[in-house]
Amino acid sequence: MQAKELLSGIVSGNRRSLSRAITLIESMKPEHRQLATQILQDLPLKSNTMRVGICGSPGAGKSTLIEALGLNLVSKGRFPAVLAMDPSSNQFGGSILGDKTRMAELSRNERVFVRPSPTRGVLGGVTSSCSENILLCEAGGYDTVLVETVGLGQSETTVDEVSDLVMLVTSPAGGDSLQGIKKGIMEVADLIVINKAEPPYKERAKSAKHELEQAIKLNIRRYNSWVPPVVMCSASKKQGIDDIIEQIDKAGTELRDQILLKRKKQMAKNCERMLQDLLTMKLNDIRDSKDYSQIMKSLDSKQLIPRSAAIEILQLLSSKV
Amino acid sequence: MQAKELLSGIVSGNRRSLSRAITLIESMKPEHRQLATQILQDLPLKSNTMRVGICGSPGAGKSTLIEALGLNLVSKGRFPAVLAMDPSSNQFGGSILGDKTRMAELSRNERVFVRPSPTRGVLGGVTSSCSENILLCEAGGYDTVLVETVGLGQSETTVDEVSDLVMLVTSPAGGDSLQGIKKGIMEVADLIVINKAEPPYKERAKSAKHELEQAIKLNIRRYNSWVPPVVMCSASKKQGIDDIIEQIDKAGTELRDQILLKRKKQMAKNCERMLQDLLTMKLNDIRDSKDYSQIMKSLDSKQLIPRSAAIEILQLLSSKV
Repeated sequence: MQAKELLSGIVSGNRRSLSRAITLIESMKPEHRQLATQILQDLPLKSNTMRVGICGSPGAGKSTLIEALGLNLVSKGRFPAVLAMDPSSNQFGGSILGDKTRMAELSRNERVFVRPSPTRGVLGGVTSSCSENILLCEAGGYDTVLVETVGLGQSETTVDEVSDLVMLVTSPAGGDSLQGIKKGIMEVADLIVINKAEPPYKERAKSAKHELEQAIKLNIRRYNSWVPPVVMCSASKKQGIDDIIEQIDKAGTELRDQILLKRKKQMAKNCERMLQDLLTMKLNDIRDSKDYSQIMKSLDSKQLIPRSAAIEILQLLSSKV
Repeated sequence: MQAKELLSGIVSGNRRSLSRAITLIESMKPEHRQLATQILQDLPLKSNTMRVGICGSPGAGKSTLIEALGLNLVSKGRFPAVLAMDPSSNQFGGSILGDKTRMAELSRNERVFVRPSPTRGVLGGVTSSCSENILLCEAGGYDTVLVETVGLGQSETTVDEVSDLVMLVTSPAGGDSLQGIKKGIMEVADLIVINKAEPPYKERAKSAKHELEQAIKLNIRRYNSWVPPVVMCSASKKQGIDDIIEQIDKAGTELRDQILLKRKKQMAKNCERMLQDLLTMKLNDIRDSKDYSQIMKSLDSKQLIPRSAAIEILQLLSSKV
């Protein structure tokens, strides 16, 4: 399929076209890369969207909460998209279980787009590819993109690099230590959700809320004008979901300028990542060439010193761009 | 001065030409880099030389030993060169005290070339630049290059990347724990020297020698055919220096094939390092250009997505090689 067809499919809201384009973005094959670039180059960019990164330790109920959020957004006439991001997938192979099976109800909804995280390494790393996927979703008419972090690793800082706001999900059940959460994550969390605020955890949730609010007061804040709110909810009972969406929208409005600046910085950083990966890829491409072997042979036979060989490789690299 | 003149000066044994060429190699200025490359490209490469990396904790008496080794080599009709390498100089600014002041007698000798380590970052890092300096010294007629590691950091593994043999210098004085030495360094040391084997440390030196020999038996060896010898000496009294040189020469003869293979691998690795640095440098070069600013502006105004911007930067990079 050609780039133009896919692009018009995406823009007209065809989920299959969107899926296919994301697959191209996440592919390492040269012909796919080229097609992905063509699509991205002509993509209409939307600015009136919201990107929410969702992090929290496993067991906090992120998936259940995302399902509840998604359905609530739909009921409000909005179009949510759910992307997953596994910061560890570059190294370790990613999540085995697809997200579709986990968010059954949401996946079936026609107004929602749900996409699991890539399981292998992608161009520019998970951050760049996730950012591009967000652009695709937005072009497809999805106005609220929820990015769930899956897997292990530095999920909160990674998700911060692709989203407008970071939402930390925690739970008073299962002994999820609030002390442990406070350390690095408070600096990136724009919104904290205490999930499972339901019997028998209701009282624990309340004291956790109080504790977190105290911690926020003592912490260095990202924005002077924004005190991260702590919201209690029960995702499984679909309680408190309206409050969360209200806070997300409030942050989106009040932090509009800061978010636009943040997006610009994210773009510049993604550009650097892409460049790094493109260079590495081009280098791998020429490694199989005759010219490259010739340079290596000359190095081996001492006809070339390392510096001259490096210069010749650089010239070879340039001729192949 | 032109490359040709410098080159003929080096080959004819002019120490000032050699010094100047090393300065060019260690310079980051484009015109110096170019001149350095010209010199290196036409440099006659010698193979019948010996490169000995010397490491050991501060206080083991490395400098005194190198002075003794150098003078002994001169007395045998050989031409030693002493280079210093500071693995930490890329980050921290290197050694403040030049080596010339420390090796007074050796520096004055006309058959010896002594050069302190570069104090700033160099193209390809200290490893590549030291390797190139070795080639220059060898072209200048110096048949035995002693590379002293100065400063802190992973000196033994770094010096291993530029030398044929690694000599570990230790001392029973000052409580230099032998237990501490045994860990990683035994795998790269081809020769161990116990310096300061003189009163009042004579007995301690003997038991250290025994201890080290036992440790070598238990350790994984780099070469099946070579058991790293442990030699006692007193650098300040110039005792045991002949033994060290004998062992160096013995290793050079017995490990000839392995050393030639090692040199090839070192060249390939240096080529990679150079390429990395060249790319970074070229990228820095274009960062000030109008074209680059234009790309960044387009990225900022969302006329370009990060991927397309990266591709344009790569094209710009190629046109400037």
